[in-house]
Amino acid sequence: MASERNYILIETVKRLLRRGAHARLKKIISRIHAADLSMVFSSLSASHQRQLFSLIEDRQQQGKILSELDEDIVLSVIEGVSVSDIIEILDQMPSDDAAAFIKLLPREQADDVLAHIRKKGDEDVENLLMYPDDTAGGIMIPDFIALPEDMTAGEVVSTLQSKEYKDIEMPFYIYVIDEDQHLSGVCSLRQLVLVRPDTPLKNFMSTDVISVTTDMDQEEVAKIVARYNFLAVPVVDEEHRMVGLVTVDDVIDIFREEATEDILKMAGVGEEFVETKSVFRSTRIRLPWLFASCVGGVIAIFVIGHFEASLQQISYLAAFIPVIMGMGGNVGIQSSTIVVRGLATGRIHIQDLWRVVSKELAVGLILGVVYGCLLAGLAQFQYSVAGFSLAVSMGVLSSMTVAALIGSLLPMLFARINVDPAVATGPFVTSAIDIVSVFFYFQLATFLLGI
Amino acid sequence: MASERNYILIETVKRLLRRGAHARLKKIISRIHAADLSMVFSSLSASHQRQLFSLIEDRQQQGKILSELDEDIVLSVIEGVSVSDIIEILDQMPSDDAAAFIKLLPREQADDVLAHIRKKGDEDVENLLMYPDDTAGGIMIPDFIALPEDMTAGEVVSTLQSKEYKDIEMPFYIYVIDEDQHLSGVCSLRQLVLVRPDTPLKNFMSTDVISVTTDMDQEEVAKIVARYNFLAVPVVDEEHRMVGLVTVDDVIDIFREEATEDILKMAGVGEEFVETKSVFRSTRIRLPWLFASCVGGVIAIFVIGHFEASLQQISYLAAFIPVIMGMGGNVGIQSSTIVVRGLATGRIHIQDLWRVVSKELAVGLILGVVYGCLLAGLAQFQYSVAGFSLAVSMGVLSSMTVAALIGSLLPMLFARINVDPAVATGPFVTSAIDIVSVFFYFQLATFLLGI
Repeated sequence: MASERNYILIETVKRLLRRGAHARLKKIISRIHAADLSMVFSSLSASHQRQLFSLIEDRQQQGKILSELDEDIVLSVIEGVSVSDIIEILDQMPSDDAAAFIKLLPREQADDVLAHIRKKGDEDVENLLMYPDDTAGGIMIPDFIALPEDMTAGEVVSTLQSKEYKDIEMPFYIYVIDEDQHLSGVCSLRQLVLVRPDTPLKNFMSTDVISVTTDMDQEEVAKIVARYNFLAVPVVDEEHRMVGLVTVDDVIDIFREEATEDILKMAGVGEEFVETKSVFRSTRIRLPWLFASCVGGVIAIFVIGHFEASLQQISYLAAFIPVIMGMGGNVGIQSSTIVVRGLATGRIHIQDLWRVVSKELAVGLILGVVYGCLLAGLAQFQYSVAGFSLAVSMGVLSSMTVAALIGSLLPMLFARINVDPAVATGPFVTSAIDIVSVFFYFQLATFLLGI
Repeated sequence: MASERNYILIETVKRLLRRGAHARLKKIISRIHAADLSMVFSSLSASHQRQLFSLIEDRQQQGKILSELDEDIVLSVIEGVSVSDIIEILDQMPSDDAAAFIKLLPREQADDVLAHIRKKGDEDVENLLMYPDDTAGGIMIPDFIALPEDMTAGEVVSTLQSKEYKDIEMPFYIYVIDEDQHLSGVCSLRQLVLVRPDTPLKNFMSTDVISVTTDMDQEEVAKIVARYNFLAVPVVDEEHRMVGLVTVDDVIDIFREEATEDILKMAGVGEEFVETKSVFRSTRIRLPWLFASCVGGVIAIFVIGHFEASLQQISYLAAFIPVIMGMGGNVGIQSSTIVVRGLATGRIHIQDLWRVVSKELAVGLILGVVYGCLLAGLAQFQYSVAGFSLAVSMGVLSSMTVAALIGSLLPMLFARINVDPAVATGPFVTSAIDIVSVFFYFQLATFLLGI
C-alpha cells in the first residue's frame, strides 16, 4: 500500500538522519521525486527538516521542495539559510512559485530578496507579487504561449522549438492575441498537429474563449476550470490583455485546501491545518470559537436558575437535560452541515432559502416526534408522575425542531449578508439550542406539572 | 458575479418552461454549454427537469447532460424515456460515461440496454462494467494512445491524424507498449513536436512511468495524480498491460466528492448530498446516527438519577450541566475534526498516534483550565457555597480534557482497525462526553460538598 511504502521511506530517512549518514541520504535525495521528498519532510522534526534540507545540493530541487511544503515548515526550514542562498534558490524557481515564496518570508529577508529581484530586472516575479494571494493573479503562472492570429501552424511549431518556449509548463493550449495583447482565441496543440502547416491560427482557433480576470477569487476560478473540464484557463487584466494562466494542478490544490478550510472552520479550529503548530498556538486559535459557543451555556445557567423552584420539587427533571440538549445539538449540526456544504459546493443557492429551511424544519419535526416518543416512553418508565413524560417529549420535540430551523436558517442568512457561513454558524447554533431547549423544557414541565 | 448570471439563467428557463415556450427554450439549449445546462437542471422541479430534457433534440447533448447530473436527478429525468431512446443516447456517449450511466439504471432497463450493448459488440462498455465504481477501473476511460516503441515521431503524428485517434480525449500523453500490450514508457505530445520526425519513440520516451492498477481505490488514484501534477495516469491490469486512463478532470471531481462525503459523514447525514432527496429519505438516513448519539444521553439519565439525592440538596447543580456538557462537546468536535481530516488528507499518519493524541490532550487540558477558571468565577458569584465553584471547575476541566482525549484517540484507533473514522467517531465522542462529564461533575460535587 502507498502509505506502507511512505512509512518505510520516512523511517529510513529518520534513521539515517539520526546516524548522520549524509552520503546515503544524498543518494536517496538524488533519486526520489520532489513530491515524495516533501512528503517525508512533513513527518520530520524541525531540526531534522533543516538537516535534510541542507543535504539537498541541487538548488532547483531545494526550490521544488519549498514550493510543496506548508508555510510553517518552510519558515522553519529556511531559518538557518542565508539570504544569498535564498536568492540562489529563488533564481531557479518558476516565477509563480518564487512569488508565493517571497510572500512567506519575514520582512527583513523579503526586503533583501526584493532588492535583488529588482536589480536582476525580473519583471515576472515583481508583477506577480502585486496580486493578493487568493486571487487568479496570485496563483497564475506568467509563462504561456500567446501568438498572433496570422501565424501559420508550421510557424507555431517552429516557435515552440525555440529557446523562449522550450520550458513552458502547459504547452497544450496555444492562445491567440491581437497586436495589443488582447486575447482573441485559443487552439490546442493537438489541432496544431492535425492541420496543414500553412493554415493560419485564425482559421482553426476557437474564438469562444473562457477567461478569468486577475482579481477573481481563486475558488471561483477553480470552479470554472472544474465545470468545463479545462486543463488551464487564461487570466486577463481589465483591458482583456492576457497576463497569465491558471493550471489544473493548482486547481486541484485549491479544492483540497478549500475543503479542509471549511471543515476546520466549521469546528472553530482556524483555517489552516493546525497539526503543524505548537500547542500554544493551537490553543489560542481555538479559544474564541469556544468562547462564543460558551455564551449559550452561560445563559442556560440563568434560565435553569430561574426554574430552581421546579427543580427543588422534581429534581429528576435534571436527568433529562443532557439528552434533550444532545439530540438538539446533533440535529443542529446535521442541518447546518448540510446547508453550509451545500452553499459551498453550489448545490444550494441563496435564493432557495425558504425551500431549504422548510425542508430541514420538516425533517427536524419528524425526528423530534420520533425521539420525543421514544424518550417519553423511557421517562414514563422511569418516573411515572402525570405530565412528566409529556414535558420530556415536548422538550425533545422543541429542541430538535428549533435546532433544525436555526441550523438551516442561519447559514443562509449569513451567506446573504456575505458573512462566511462556515465560521459563523457553529457558535450561534450551539448557543441557541442550549438556551431554547432548556427554556422550553423547564417552562413546559413547570406548566404541565403544576409546579 | 457568476452566481448572479446563473440565477438569471435559471429563472429565465423556469419562466419559459411555465409558459411552454418551447421554441425559445430549444434556442437557449442549442447555445449554452452542457456544463451550464446541467447546472440549470439541478435547480428545477422534477417535472420541469423531464420537460426540459425532452426538449433537447441532440442525443449527444442529452448524453452529456446525463453524465453531469446527480444520480437522483438522472433517474427522475429518464423515468419517462423509452428504452430505445436510452439506447440511442448511450450510443453517443463516451464509453466511461456510458458504463457509469448503465450502472445507475433500474434492473429492467439495465438488462435491456446490456442486451443491446452485447449485440452491438461494444467491448469497451462491457469491460468497464466489470469494475467496481470507486476503483481506477470504474473511473478510467478506455481510449488512449498506446503505440509500439519502434514507431518514429513522424509516424506517430500520422497515426494521430487517422480516423481511429481523431476523437481521443487526452492526446497529450503518448504511452508506449511492447508487443504484448505491456506498458513500457510514456512521452508527451510536446516532445513529439520537438524531436526529429525519424526518431523512434524508445529514444525519447520516459521509462519511469507511474501507473495504477485497476483495483486501486479512486481516492488513492486521485492523490497520485495530484501529488505528481499529472494530467492523466495510466491504468494497468495484473499483467501490467495498459487498459485505461484516469484523467485529471475526473480527479477533481473525486476530490470534491470525497470532501463532501467526509463532511456529511461526520455529521451523520449519509454520504451523498441529501438536498435532492425527499423529506422521508433524508429523515431515514439521519435516524441511525442520532440513535447512536442518543445512547450517551440516555445513560446520562441514569447517571444523574443516581445522584438525585445531591440534586435534592443543591438543585442549583443542574444549572451548570448544559455548559459543562457543551464545552466538552465543542472540544470533542474540534479534536475529532482535526484528526479525521488530518487522516483523510495524509497530514496525520496512523503511526503518529501518541504524538497527535498527547498534543490534543495538552490543548484540551489548557482549554479546560482556562474555561474551568472562568466558569468557576461565575459559579462562585452565583452560588457561594464552599466547594461549589471547585466542583464546577473540575467538571469543566474533566469534560474538556476527556473530550480532547477521546476525540483524538478514537479516530486514530478506528483508522488502525480499518473502520472509517469519519462516520464512526461522532456518536462515540458525543456519548462518551455526555456520560463522563456528568459523572465526574456530580461525583466531585457530591464529594466536595459533603452531600
